[in-house]
Amino acid sequence: MRDNNRQVKLVQRPVGEPAPEIFEISETPLPQPQDGEFLVKVLYLSVDPAMRGWMNEGRSYIEPVALGDVMRAGAVGRIVSSRSATFSEGDYVSGTFGVQHYAVSDGRGVHKVDPSIAPLERYLGVLGMPGMTAYFGLLEVGNPKEGDTVLVSGAAGAVGATVGQIAKIQGCTAVGIAGGQAKCDFAREVGFDDVVDYKAEQVHKGIKRACPHGVDVYFDNVGGEILEGALARLRLHARVVLCGAISQYNKAESLRGPRNYMALLVHRARMEGFVVFDYSHRYDEAARQMAQWIKAGKLQAREHVVDGIDDFHNHLMMLFRGENFGKLVIKVQDD
Amino acid sequence: MRDNNRQVKLVQRPVGEPAPEIFEISETPLPQPQDGEFLVKVLYLSVDPAMRGWMNEGRSYIEPVALGDVMRAGAVGRIVSSRSATFSEGDYVSGTFGVQHYAVSDGRGVHKVDPSIAPLERYLGVLGMPGMTAYFGLLEVGNPKEGDTVLVSGAAGAVGATVGQIAKIQGCTAVGIAGGQAKCDFAREVGFDDVVDYKAEQVHKGIKRACPHGVDVYFDNVGGEILEGALARLRLHARVVLCGAISQYNKAESLRGPRNYMALLVHRARMEGFVVFDYSHRYDEAARQMAQWIKAGKLQAREHVVDGIDDFHNHLMMLFRGENFGKLVIKVQDD
Repeated sequence: MRDNNRQVKLVQRPVGEPAPEIFEISETPLPQPQDGEFLVKVLYLSVDPAMRGWMNEGRSYIEPVALGDVMRAGAVGRIVSSRSATFSEGDYVSGTFGVQHYAVSDGRGVHKVDPSIAPLERYLGVLGMPGMTAYFGLLEVGNPKEGDTVLVSGAAGAVGATVGQIAKIQGCTAVGIAGGQAKCDFAREVGFDDVVDYKAEQVHKGIKRACPHGVDVYFDNVGGEILEGALARLRLHARVVLCGAISQYNKAESLRGPRNYMALLVHRARMEGFVVFDYSHRYDEAARQMAQWIKAGKLQAREHVVDGIDDFHNHLMMLFRGENFGKLVIKVQDD
Repeated sequence: MRDNNRQVKLVQRPVGEPAPEIFEISETPLPQPQDGEFLVKVLYLSVDPAMRGWMNEGRSYIEPVALGDVMRAGAVGRIVSSRSATFSEGDYVSGTFGVQHYAVSDGRGVHKVDPSIAPLERYLGVLGMPGMTAYFGLLEVGNPKEGDTVLVSGAAGAVGATVGQIAKIQGCTAVGIAGGQAKCDFAREVGFDDVVDYKAEQVHKGIKRACPHGVDVYFDNVGGEILEGALARLRLHARVVLCGAISQYNKAESLRGPRNYMALLVHRARMEGFVVFDYSHRYDEAARQMAQWIKAGKLQAREHVVDGIDDFHNHLMMLFRGENFGKLVIKVQDD
C-alpha cells in the first residue's frame, strides 16, 4: 500500500467547456479511518455527464462540488482497513468515493458488490447508476406499453443502450439516435431495431424515417436539436423523459430550449424530469431484475475502460466529444 | 330578417402578426337549411387566442381554416328556421358558427343554452370553452392539492381568471401574472391572493416575491419569458399545464423555447399539454359545477363585449395587445 493519496481536485468553476486548469492533481498523506469508518482503495471510477452540473455553483438536485474539494465521482473499490461494524476489510463496495486513489467513508450511500457475479466495472454501468437511470427513467417515467415506439438519444451511451434493451424486453420498438457509423453499429448490436445517425442525416428526417407511426416515448439524454426533432414526431399522449441534455451542458450562455415545445399541447403529451436518486430505495429490486436479464442473455453490458486519474480531464472530455462506447470507466489502479 | 349574410373570410395566411388584409368582408345570399339542418342567427362570437393557430397551414390539433372560408369562431345564436328533429325555431344554441351573421348547421357540436340561467355571452366565457379549458386544465392536468401554490399567467383573461378562482375553491393559494395596473386590479378583484405585474417588475423577481415557497402548479397561457420565470421557481414534483403561448403566436420565426426547461429535471416536475376538446364528453358535468359555484358566489364571470364583425381584425388584435378584461366577445347583432 502506498503512503500517499493521489487526488484530483476541482480548483476553478468551468465556464462553458471545462478547461484542464480547473482540475489540480495533488498528493496528501493517506487518510486514517476513525471509529465507524473504513478506508477504501478505489479501483474503478465512473465518468458521467452529470459531473458537468456538479461543477457549477448554484441550486440543483445536489450540492455543487466545493472549490478545493476532490472531484465527486461514483466508484468501486476494496476496503483495506475498517473500524466499521458493517463493512469489513476485503469487502468490495460501491459509493461516491471521488476522483482519488483512497477514500475514507462512514458507509453512508455505500453498497457491497460481488465480483463473482459481474466484473467490478459493471457495477458502475448496467448494475450501477446508469443502469438504474435507464430502468427507472424508462419504466417509471416513460411508462412504455407493448407495441409502443420508444426513441432514445445517446443510444450508444451507458444509459441509452440500456434503455433501448429494456424497451425491447417490454415488447416495444426501440429506435436509437447516435452520432457516427461506429456508434450506430454498436446500438444495432445491442438490439435497437433502427438507428438514426445524426451525423449522416438530418435528425428530424431520420426520426420520421425510423418512426413512421410517430414516437410514444422519447428518452432524452441530449437536448438541443435532437429533442426538437423528437417533439415534432410525438404521438398522442406521448411521454418525453428528461434524463439529460449533454449537448447543452458546456454552453456558458443562451442554453437552447425546445422551440417547438407546444407540440406537447398539440399531442396532449408530457415532458417529465426525474433524478435517479429518488429511487434509491428500489435499487436492489432493479439490480436483481437487470442481473436476471443479463443472465438470460436479454441485456448486454459494455464498458469503455480508460486508464488512470492523472488524465481525468481528458477522460471527461471524451464524454462530451462522444468518443465512448458504452459506459466510460476509469481504471484507477490494480487491485 | 335580412336577405343577405355578412361574412368575414380568411383570404391570406398571416405571417407573424395578422394584417388586416388577411380578412375580407363579403355579403352572400342567406343560406337555406336542408333536411336535418337549421339556420341560426348569430348573436355573440368568441374571440380566442387559438384563432391565430387556426389560420396557419399545417398539422395541429384541428384542421386549419381553408383560404376563402369563413373564419372559424365559437358563437351563440338563436335558431330562426329549422328542418332538424333535435333543434327547433327559437332555441338558443352554442356552436362553431363562424364570423358571420347567419349560419347553417346540422347540429354536430351544437348545444342548447338557457338565457334564463345566464346572459348569452357567458356561454362563450365561464360556461363555454374558456371555462371548460380552465376547469379541465387545472383539475385534470394540474392536479392541485389543498395548500398548493397555483401560479397562473394571463390572469385577467377568460381562462386565467377562472383558473385562479377554481384554485381558490380547491384550497390553494392563487397567484396571477398580468400586464398593467388595471389588469392586476381585476385579477385581485376576482380573488387572486397576489398578482405579479410583468410590466411593473421583472417577472422572475415578482414570482419569487409572490410565491416564496415556490410553485406547485403553473398554468401557462403565454409562454416566453414568463414560462421561464415560472420554471425557475418550481417546487418538487410540480406540474406545468401548457394551455397556450400567446406571447409566441405571432412570431413568424424562431419561436422561443423555455431555455431553462431542465428545471423539470432538477425539480422532478412535468410539463403537459392538453386540448379541451378531449373532455367534450364531460362538458355538462363541468358546466353544472361552474353554474353552482357562480350561484354560490364563489366564481365570478366577466365578459368584455365589443361590437360588430366588420371590425373583426381590430377585435382580434385587442387580444394580442392584451387589451381585454375577461372574456372577449363580439356582439354580432341584436336578437
